[in-house]
Amino acid sequence: MHFTSEKILDGGVVEREFILGEIPGILWTSVTATEPAPLQLLGHPGGLGRMYPRVLGRARNAVAEGFAAATIEQPGSGDRPVSAAAEQARIDLRQAIQAGGPVDDEIVARLILPLVDQAVPEWQATLDALLELPEIGGPVGFAGGVISVAVRLAAIEPRIAAAILFAGSYVPRAMFEEAEQVKIPLHVLLQWDDEGNDRELALDLFDAFGSEQKTLHANMGGHTGVPQFAGEEGNRFFARHLK
Amino acid sequence: MHFTSEKILDGGVVEREFILGEIPGILWTSVTATEPAPLQLLGHPGGLGRMYPRVLGRARNAVAEGFAAATIEQPGSGDRPVSAAAEQARIDLRQAIQAGGPVDDEIVARLILPLVDQAVPEWQATLDALLELPEIGGPVGFAGGVISVAVRLAAIEPRIAAAILFAGSYVPRAMFEEAEQVKIPLHVLLQWDDEGNDRELALDLFDAFGSEQKTLHANMGGHTGVPQFAGEEGNRFFARHLK
Repeated sequence: MHFTSEKILDGGVVEREFILGEIPGILWTSVTATEPAPLQLLGHPGGLGRMYPRVLGRARNAVAEGFAAATIEQPGSGDRPVSAAAEQARIDLRQAIQAGGPVDDEIVARLILPLVDQAVPEWQATLDALLELPEIGGPVGFAGGVISVAVRLAAIEPRIAAAILFAGSYVPRAMFEEAEQVKIPLHVLLQWDDEGNDRELALDLFDAFGSEQKTLHANMGGHTGVPQFAGEEGNRFFARHLK
Repeated sequence: MHFTSEKILDGGVVEREFILGEIPGILWTSVTATEPAPLQLLGHPGGLGRMYPRVLGRARNAVAEGFAAATIEQPGSGDRPVSAAAEQARIDLRQAIQAGGPVDDEIVARLILPLVDQAVPEWQATLDALLELPEIGGPVGFAGGVISVAVRLAAIEPRIAAAILFAGSYVPRAMFEEAEQVKIPLHVLLQWDDEGNDRELALDLFDAFGSEQKTLHANMGGHTGVPQFAGEEGNRFFARHLK
């Protein structure tokens, strides 16, 4: 992990860009922190440049609550190489959604599973590097991003103690078995009127999680309209489980 | 409305029992309140004697947050007369649930609709009387109880500005049209693993509500296991909409 820039933002937030191998990322910490901070890994749907204002908002909230926060670019997004297969799957999924009928699981699997296979080890390598920094302690929470990536991380990465999942993307049926392996506390956000998502699939996935403590918060406002109070409820979930 | 007792409880809560016609009820206010307080009407499943400890806990939270709180006994519960038809419907429903198959809407309607028809005007009369007291102002929220009662109140009673619904009892299909007429902000609690409830029906009902602002919070813990943090989220919902 090589830091490539460092800025002090309003509110006493230190923002450092880094490169880990070929993966760009950002780490946010508090300028006043005196002890190793618990960590929030902030997922996003890919395209960190475009997503930066919203991810920064979440990072500011995390730092204000006593956490460090970090994100990385997603495989195939931003300046990272895109596979032709992923591009084709994305086109096929968009067409299937626009056609209005049920979306074939084969298309979803073709788009999502390779992404999960690549993204999960990258998050784990990022976690390895972050936990070596003296300013980062544990425990670690994962929040947001492509839900299938978060599900596998929650299932297999023992250093992740709690997760906030955003049920806002199609999930291949193959992920349901992994969902049953998830045992950590979960806080699942669902936009009830998200037209680009399959609500029944999201509810089935929530049902499948093996966690004894799982909460579903469904709100109105469309895919990008998660209300501010829902973000605050997520903060309180992490405060309950990571502090 | 005639007050029949007055006590000062720990925490500066004034508890007054009252009778309105033949309906017993309880009003909780703050001993230190200097202005008319917004009001929470606290529903419960019937049997105020048995339910008292839990309703009192909710009332204490409400008073601590600056609200007055009130409840009344439900028709057919406590010392109030029970109709033979309601008793038979309750037996039929219990048998249908124990049989494990889908529950016939006719049984649910036979149990719930007469209760709604009787309970809703009683809550409205209670509201009339409470709002004449100098210590009670507006706005008014309704929370909990038999969800069909709350749905009709939310649909037809313009003085109710926001409602917390507990999706923990069977809802006759006839209530779904009334649900579409509900336009106020809703905060719906669902116990995901409530074995005596029909989860699909609860999700369909949530979908049917006409409110632009509606939130579903689903948790684990069975019918009576609503987590403490879920109660606190309900308090914050009322704080957002009633203050």
